[in-house]
Amino acid sequence: MITENQYFENNVKSLGYHTSEGKSTVGVINPGEYEFGTSNKEIMHVIEGELIALLPNTTEWQSIKAGQSFEVEKNSSFKVKANAQTAYLCQYR
Amino acid sequence: MITENQYFENNVKSLGYHTSEGKSTVGVINPGEYEFGTSNKEIMHVIEGELIALLPNTTEWQSIKAGQSFEVEKNSSFKVKANAQTAYLCQYR
Repeated sequence: MITENQYFENNVKSLGYHTSEGKSTVGVINPGEYEFGTSNKEIMHVIEGELIALLPNTTEWQSIKAGQSFEVEKNSSFKVKANAQTAYLCQYR
Repeated sequence: MITENQYFENNVKSLGYHTSEGKSTVGVINPGEYEFGTSNKEIMHVIEGELIALLPNTTEWQSIKAGQSFEVEKNSSFKVKANAQTAYLCQYR
């Protein structure tokens, strides 16, 4: 089954699936700024576009471009900004 | 706007968006075999998982794993098989 998820008034949408290593989603983020909470460790990969992320316990926004990734520990929150529609892969591992 | 697409009785779902270089979709393919037609040139990237593809004018199925890609010309068709849920990026360029 491929699950459909919508967040932030449809400005973030994702499709959920399972791999042998755990759950993943691929999604698209519209231009804007969003704050996400984690209940599991997340590995976020930018597939196309660019995210500007403010990670837990940091004070500087950093650019994550296509092909790059960042990790967020469980039970934390992080912010991302996008200036253009950006595709991502999120691995819950 | 992030468009939602479903094909093959919900066994393939994708999210469509636009980049400065053209339209793209990220999607998930359930296990099975599918035939797609193209109206534009498509560059297909496997994000997570594996696709086994039969490309136009070829007679041998080939494996495309995460991080690999293949191109299909416009106005043609190709087949893909998946043995597990597989995520892809399709760039229409």
